[in-house]
Amino acid sequence: MGLSTVLTAMFGIEYPVVLAPMGDVAGGTLAAAVSNGGGLGVIGAGRGDLAWLERECERARAGTDKPWGIGFLAWAIDAEVIDAALAQSPAAIMLSFGDPAPFIETIRAAGVPVIVQVTNLPEARRALDAGADVVAAQGSEAGGHHGGGRATLPFVPAVVDIAGSVPVLAAGGIADGRGLAAALVLGAAGAVIGTRFEATPEALIEPAAVDAILAAGAEDTTSGRALDVIRDSPWPEQYPARTLRNKVTDQWQGREAGIDDAARAEFRAAVGRGDPDYVPIWAGEALDMVTEHVSAATLVGRIAREAEQAIAAAGRAHG
Amino acid sequence: MGLSTVLTAMFGIEYPVVLAPMGDVAGGTLAAAVSNGGGLGVIGAGRGDLAWLERECERARAGTDKPWGIGFLAWAIDAEVIDAALAQSPAAIMLSFGDPAPFIETIRAAGVPVIVQVTNLPEARRALDAGADVVAAQGSEAGGHHGGGRATLPFVPAVVDIAGSVPVLAAGGIADGRGLAAALVLGAAGAVIGTRFEATPEALIEPAAVDAILAAGAEDTTSGRALDVIRDSPWPEQYPARTLRNKVTDQWQGREAGIDDAARAEFRAAVGRGDPDYVPIWAGEALDMVTEHVSAATLVGRIAREAEQAIAAAGRAHG
Repeated sequence: MGLSTVLTAMFGIEYPVVLAPMGDVAGGTLAAAVSNGGGLGVIGAGRGDLAWLERECERARAGTDKPWGIGFLAWAIDAEVIDAALAQSPAAIMLSFGDPAPFIETIRAAGVPVIVQVTNLPEARRALDAGADVVAAQGSEAGGHHGGGRATLPFVPAVVDIAGSVPVLAAGGIADGRGLAAALVLGAAGAVIGTRFEATPEALIEPAAVDAILAAGAEDTTSGRALDVIRDSPWPEQYPARTLRNKVTDQWQGREAGIDDAARAEFRAAVGRGDPDYVPIWAGEALDMVTEHVSAATLVGRIAREAEQAIAAAGRAHG
Repeated sequence: MGLSTVLTAMFGIEYPVVLAPMGDVAGGTLAAAVSNGGGLGVIGAGRGDLAWLERECERARAGTDKPWGIGFLAWAIDAEVIDAALAQSPAAIMLSFGDPAPFIETIRAAGVPVIVQVTNLPEARRALDAGADVVAAQGSEAGGHHGGGRATLPFVPAVVDIAGSVPVLAAGGIADGRGLAAALVLGAAGAVIGTRFEATPEALIEPAAVDAILAAGAEDTTSGRALDVIRDSPWPEQYPARTLRNKVTDQWQGREAGIDDAARAEFRAAVGRGDPDYVPIWAGEALDMVTEHVSAATLVGRIAREAEQAIAAAGRAHG
């Protein structure tokens, strides 16, 4: 296998593809499909709703015998959430956005590897110091929340250069085999892929959102804090989010200070009736390569084969 | 040769490495060094100062018998500048930022290939429609001016997908062999490299700026319009610039509307005395990989060898 890496060996998986733990979108069914396809599915358990977590872990177990993981937002969880996650016997726990240090010892003591996603070099150094088993270097081309300051292509090798023997994953802007191949030649042991897996039948996502994702390109996305501010989200300020442009971002992105009670009420009412001009659709700059609604299990193998081909083609003279 | 591509065949060069035509920095000596190293040196003739252009072309000719090109800012030049450039018999003319269409026919009629740098998909489509021979897809991690809206890793394959048989180059965030390898597996025929070549003895750059570049990392850069506004530059608004942070960007980036005559006068006086807290130092997010002052001619071959190794390593199982 041309795509065996430290990551595939660590988790006993076929391909170095990790499902981004997209909150509320990456449920147990999607995680199981990615794992069945040969990657590592990761449930997006976000802030740690324990009932949701239990239900989605049951779905993952029902869907696959292969390893899968659970991802959380480090800024939003506590020790109780980690204990509940460990009780589900995941193959990995992934912590993103915020300080992972308070949780790493407990997780590792349970024999579960910790993947820490980082958005800049200070975060990468802290994750390494805290004992992360894998570090995912995420660029701002990612869908959903990100660090705002780094792009995947130059960020990944910079993290590789400080990571020593700790494997690094590339996250942000990757949706096909070319992107996975780029991750590998940059020195990463694999890629974290999100947006591409939104447009699958296994994702927890409204059909209208899938249609919007398939129709849109990278230049239909926008990044900022307007949607977090208008929905009164407690997301830390240093993490903006990339979404499809909509009425809210057109009006308020970069002008978040102007969002008042009336704007919030209008937003809540519109979202309540499912108005597509208001509902946030998280999506990254890899959107240009997301043009087909296809099973996640099928996608993983296809991405891996394309990556092998891309690497083989680059290794040949092709004048 | 593992790194032969459509680009190396088109120009009869050894490695698919193109010097970014950094205005005032990429003179004839640097262009010649890159070409002697096996890449394609491109003189950064910016807005088309004809005396500067003539002098630097003489230096290129004196420095190498290999092919080299000339780069201009499309928004800043006119037909007379193109005629003067063609009289220098360059191997290529590169047009960046702005509409290249008015110049392409003249250049191609002279038998000189045109490389057009683009910063988003509409620009890429216009460049292809206008007859560009090569399209360089530039992400916002680039040093100096850029489009502000795209990251190299997902942008390059999106341009490849619409470019048909026209070769695409990757620009922005590339400084070493891993970055060149990423460009190639993404489907590009080569990489445009800028910041890395600033830290060479052949660049037209102050020693203090080189020291600052070697000491800084990507997270010491900032992107915006403050330096263009404070120096009354006619750069079009849609192209922000990435530089090292300094007193000007700390005070004015994102608050450019507040720049008044007093601020401009203070800036001019400080630059006049060479104050390093004010002088713009153009640099991109590949800075983390720029840690050594080394000859450009040496660098090109080193980057190519590293790229071959990165591709070969990714093509092997390395569990």
